[in-house]
Amino acid sequence: MATQTETKNNSFILAGEKSVKFEDRPIPSISDPHDVLLQVNYTGICGSDIHYWQHGRIGHYVVKDPMVLGHESSGTVVAVGDQVTTLKKGDRVAMEPGVCCRRCVRCKEGLYNLCLDMKFAATPPYDGTLAKYYVLPEDFCYRLPDHVSLQEGALMEPLAVAVHITKQSRIRNGDSVVVFGAGPVGLLCCAVAKSFGASKVIAVDIQQPRLDFAKEFAATGVFMPEKVSSQENAERMVKEHDLGLGADVAIDASGAEPSVQTAMHVLRNGGSYVQGGMGRDECTFPIMVACLKELKISGSFRYSEGDYRDAVQLVGSGKIDVKKLITREVAFEEAEQAFEDIKAGKGIKVLIGGPK
Amino acid sequence: MATQTETKNNSFILAGEKSVKFEDRPIPSISDPHDVLLQVNYTGICGSDIHYWQHGRIGHYVVKDPMVLGHESSGTVVAVGDQVTTLKKGDRVAMEPGVCCRRCVRCKEGLYNLCLDMKFAATPPYDGTLAKYYVLPEDFCYRLPDHVSLQEGALMEPLAVAVHITKQSRIRNGDSVVVFGAGPVGLLCCAVAKSFGASKVIAVDIQQPRLDFAKEFAATGVFMPEKVSSQENAERMVKEHDLGLGADVAIDASGAEPSVQTAMHVLRNGGSYVQGGMGRDECTFPIMVACLKELKISGSFRYSEGDYRDAVQLVGSGKIDVKKLITREVAFEEAEQAFEDIKAGKGIKVLIGGPK
Amino acid sequence: MATQTETKNNSFILAGEKSVKFEDRPIPSISDPHDVLLQVNYTGICGSDIHYWQHGRIGHYVVKDPMVLGHESSGTVVAVGDQVTTLKKGDRVAMEPGVCCRRCVRCKEGLYNLCLDMKFAATPPYDGTLAKYYVLPEDFCYRLPDHVSLQEGALMEPLAVAVHITKQSRIRNGDSVVVFGAGPVGLLCCAVAKSFGASKVIAVDIQQPRLDFAKEFAATGVFMPEKVSSQENAERMVKEHDLGLGADVAIDASGAEPSVQTAMHVLRNGGSYVQGGMGRDECTFPIMVACLKELKISGSFRYSEGDYRDAVQLVGSGKIDVKKLITREVAFEEAEQAFEDIKAGKGIKVLIGGPK
Amino acid sequence: MATQTETKNNSFILAGEKSVKFEDRPIPSISDPHDVLLQVNYTGICGSDIHYWQHGRIGHYVVKDPMVLGHESSGTVVAVGDQVTTLKKGDRVAMEPGVCCRRCVRCKEGLYNLCLDMKFAATPPYDGTLAKYYVLPEDFCYRLPDHVSLQEGALMEPLAVAVHITKQSRIRNGDSVVVFGAGPVGLLCCAVAKSFGASKVIAVDIQQPRLDFAKEFAATGVFMPEKVSSQENAERMVKEHDLGLGADVAIDASGAEPSVQTAMHVLRNGGSYVQGGMGRDECTFPIMVACLKELKISGSFRYSEGDYRDAVQLVGSGKIDVKKLITREVAFEEAEQAFEDIKAGKGIKVLIGGPK
Repeated sequence: MATQTETKNNSFILAGEKSVKFEDRPIPSISDPHDVLLQVNYTGICGSDIHYWQHGRIGHYVVKDPMVLGHESSGTVVAVGDQVTTLKKGDRVAMEPGVCCRRCVRCKEGLYNLCLDMKFAATPPYDGTLAKYYVLPEDFCYRLPDHVSLQEGALMEPLAVAVHITKQSRIRNGDSVVVFGAGPVGLLCCAVAKSFGASKVIAVDIQQPRLDFAKEFAATGVFMPEKVSSQENAERMVKEHDLGLGADVAIDASGAEPSVQTAMHVLRNGGSYVQGGMGRDECTFPIMVACLKELKISGSFRYSEGDYRDAVQLVGSGKIDVKKLITREVAFEEAEQAFEDIKAGKGIKVLIGGPK
Repeated sequence: MATQTETKNNSFILAGEKSVKFEDRPIPSISDPHDVLLQVNYTGICGSDIHYWQHGRIGHYVVKDPMVLGHESSGTVVAVGDQVTTLKKGDRVAMEPGVCCRRCVRCKEGLYNLCLDMKFAATPPYDGTLAKYYVLPEDFCYRLPDHVSLQEGALMEPLAVAVHITKQSRIRNGDSVVVFGAGPVGLLCCAVAKSFGASKVIAVDIQQPRLDFAKEFAATGVFMPEKVSSQENAERMVKEHDLGLGADVAIDASGAEPSVQTAMHVLRNGGSYVQGGMGRDECTFPIMVACLKELKISGSFRYSEGDYRDAVQLVGSGKIDVKKLITREVAFEEAEQAFEDIKAGKGIKVLIGGPK
Repeated sequence: MATQTETKNNSFILAGEKSVKFEDRPIPSISDPHDVLLQVNYTGICGSDIHYWQHGRIGHYVVKDPMVLGHESSGTVVAVGDQVTTLKKGDRVAMEPGVCCRRCVRCKEGLYNLCLDMKFAATPPYDGTLAKYYVLPEDFCYRLPDHVSLQEGALMEPLAVAVHITKQSRIRNGDSVVVFGAGPVGLLCCAVAKSFGASKVIAVDIQQPRLDFAKEFAATGVFMPEKVSSQENAERMVKEHDLGLGADVAIDASGAEPSVQTAMHVLRNGGSYVQGGMGRDECTFPIMVACLKELKISGSFRYSEGDYRDAVQLVGSGKIDVKKLITREVAFEEAEQAFEDIKAGKGIKVLIGGPK
Repeated sequence: MATQTETKNNSFILAGEKSVKFEDRPIPSISDPHDVLLQVNYTGICGSDIHYWQHGRIGHYVVKDPMVLGHESSGTVVAVGDQVTTLKKGDRVAMEPGVCCRRCVRCKEGLYNLCLDMKFAATPPYDGTLAKYYVLPEDFCYRLPDHVSLQEGALMEPLAVAVHITKQSRIRNGDSVVVFGAGPVGLLCCAVAKSFGASKVIAVDIQQPRLDFAKEFAATGVFMPEKVSSQENAERMVKEHDLGLGADVAIDASGAEPSVQTAMHVLRNGGSYVQGGMGRDECTFPIMVACLKELKISGSFRYSEGDYRDAVQLVGSGKIDVKKLITREVAFEEAEQAFEDIKAGKGIKVLIGGPK
């Protein structure tokens, strides 16, 4: 069991598969003049945190040494490097948790999320943000407007994921959009699609309470698949939601095989699909449908330039109310309980407060 | 067995599964003032022609009534409608064999290949071009430069297919491109990719003679997969062809499951893939690779505005020598033999001359 | 002076420079099976109508024969051609007043607004919509939702203009946008930019009442230029509206030379500019600023696929309230008075009712 | 007069307006582990070098302190920093002479040429490359293929400028392209446009010898304007070069007012224009033509990700023979003479050898 110790930089650490602990870690230093030292205020928990905790790995990312967990955080500036010009002590920020190399072709062509030298929080071997202090370069910190809380600030990470997914769909004003999966990211994709001008946003899930919440939160319609073929589900969706020749855009935030299959059938000729959800490595894929309809399909991975900025703007302008997704807050000392709750499917987002 | 009869509009007709015949058909009339009456000069045979001949259907397109086959043709203008301004009697043209509705959203937004009311030659219920005469609107006829032969004109159709596929890949100058399948369309994709500025074009096939031809025709390198995992084949390809972080573009012109699988592994982060080949409805697809690499995937279907024009320009400028793909020519009366040859894999393209 | 006569197809006609009249015209017939016969309900007046009325020409478009005026109309379906499938008698529609040739390269690549054979209402030699009846192809009629009035339907034309302008700017969510000119189109550009996700929309005009209205209607801020250099005005605008490195997007809906000049200076590196307003043929242009900042500049001309659909959707969804722009309605018999009012700058939009 | 002194890092320095000298400068050190120390081999002279030399400034860039001139260079690796992985001592490279901040929005969205913190060689206050030694980050050095000479390597800079300009035009295969100005950059734009698939490349200049060279080098046709209106010149160009509805793309590499005016008239509806040439701050601009034709206009500034890589690939593949542009080479000690020659218009490119 994890025990808390009073430390300078109290950190919540994955010691091994299913084993977490609190530990004293040195306060990170400002080694680059563009760096900012932050005190972490709130951290949300993500499916990947749970996965590392339970399995000690995700794909070829293996936790070999004890690693601080967490990457969905807001914080307050404690100190700034010599060349920092846009932030000062006391500023409240959303923390973008992956720092790219800035030098490779992908970074320099504007796709830094695809950088191969990314240092991403809580992805081995890099420590996460569930600690009292964390250092980031100035340009990966996004100041929160005064009326946006630090709790909301911790939600910018999943919102930036949803912004990035939705942008990959090349959505246009007036489009009809189907979002598969009504978990946190799917819900946020619904909200982003609506903010980006979608005329219809159909949330798809297999749990009625999640659909009810989606409808209240952002979806204009909902759909629960039946145990029939994906083509039949697609046809019913088109009919029930008056999608004409098919949906313009489909987004997967479920990672489930039936979602991608149903999506191919529900899309119109030339429609677009984004794979945002993580699931099994392979799926049975109706590739001839994709070919003959000339569908535009894209993966989506994390976020790149502008996504965090959009997230803060969408919340700041009141277009997306991320507070509704916060089920409850727990103190830092109770971090493990928060992990247990999320694993058990209790609530949408649980926030962990920063160490005092 | 098919027998030939002297007629005004001698036509080569699919009477039923595996059954063809020659028949007297009325000469089509210029019903619209923008129409052009053409005498067909040469027609190539396509996999879809073979498929209709052997199976009487392709997917949900079923041949119910006898249908003229053929859609890869060149012709000579015999008569023009009152409002035709750019063509005159005697002009030699490549014939684009699908006429869109011009009124639906897809047509009006520039994606007429995705029109749901397309009238496409030799796709039921519309007759094909293996006849003496055929009518097309002026804007679907492309005049051949004087130094381009009518035989080359018949190759514009598969070349337009390859142009369209290659455009879907959003290829950029200097890109490395892998083309799966070295049949007619795959070979032409190699040539188009090179003309569009590819720095490397790797042809992949399981038959050495096809690879040898691809190398001579347009590929800068070739690759024969081994019976190992798609990931292992991809790794060997990257190594043997010095593809660095992976290929920028992969194009499938094979329709085979291992091609799409290998493609996902051989592409770099953010690379693009086009499904041009037709194969089985479904495949096992490494979807997490596509997601995490944020690959851009597109189907490709026929051709839209500019593709035929590009085809004629690429041949006319000498960049692509389609003559090399013509294995032999047969007289119209021997059309069935040409079908037999292509079915048996004898040669790349067999052209059928128009009826005298 | 114009006098009204009872007719079957009462029409408001420009007889010559500054001379209008009412006249009996034959009811147009459904000559194409895709055509729809409409009874015109409301027509707004546009600057170009005024210009033809006062000068008998716009550029090289010269009114040689008497021509029906008007092109911003809504109507009700009276009869439909044999192949019309989506409209029926009694349907209320917004009328897109320019019908393209559907055959040229521009039409087929999705830019039908640039068709050289466009038949556009009230552009010589084509009659306009200020008549009792008008014929349009089905696909240029957009059904109004039940809760959208026919008066609002007449505003879809300027709104489609604004949608098209705004799309040319390639605006992205969160962008800061400056709109020059707070007339009807400028106001609608403000509203469209906001609907498309602009974080700031600054309206610029030289009349305070227009700025006041813009602020109430859609702008988030306003700016009145002073009689200083365009660079000084731009610098003040950046400072007053906190535009950082400059605006992301600038749109001209004024046609005035100082607008384009100020726009070049107010934009950030890589920003975009759209010339939507019509003015003098030439202007003094700070071309080195455009070059060194690598600005993206586009003209905007009428509307193309999707723009009318977006207009109806933006009004139908409640995002844009075009009713606020309607200053008053006049009866058809008083059409000339409406022209006088608009010429005199009385009000924003005056609607002319259709003949009874 | 400039005199040469034996030094460790012999440098050619602009001391003030029209005053140059050779000077001893410290050898720059590898201060960042990604840096590379280069011995400069060849440097071309650019219009901007001449301009600084003659006027001591370009726009608001003013030479306040003595500054090393030159920025079009090739070099050989002398030493590498600890984290350099792709280059080693002895490698021959083209040197990209502007290093961006890597942190601003423009850098991170893939437009690093628009970075406001760019450190660009021979742009005050940053020293240029006309010295024995120069330091660059690894990722701004591009290894030359073995068969590409160091002299050719010095031409990569203007070729990258031309690549960037041509990309801004969004040229498509088969496009007709008009290039205004047949100086080094204009000539290279002709060659790049052709490599990118242009079907016609018309070079425009007012000096017949330059047109003759352009025709031999890369243009498919040439045009010399007469002293008539820009519209008349445009009409003649369309007629003489069979441009149909107008050119698809026009590129200015002249900076002259008549070029931009003629370009607007020679372009087809929806055509694109790039301002690549530097000239007077303002010009008289036919803005209504740009508006009504919905032209796409872009500035072009230096180069961004991929442009240098393309330049090396285009030369390495034999598509562009930059050697033809090299009029002569002079020794480092004769640098001033090279400046005099270029100022006097003697030759196209004069290369200055590096100090021994």
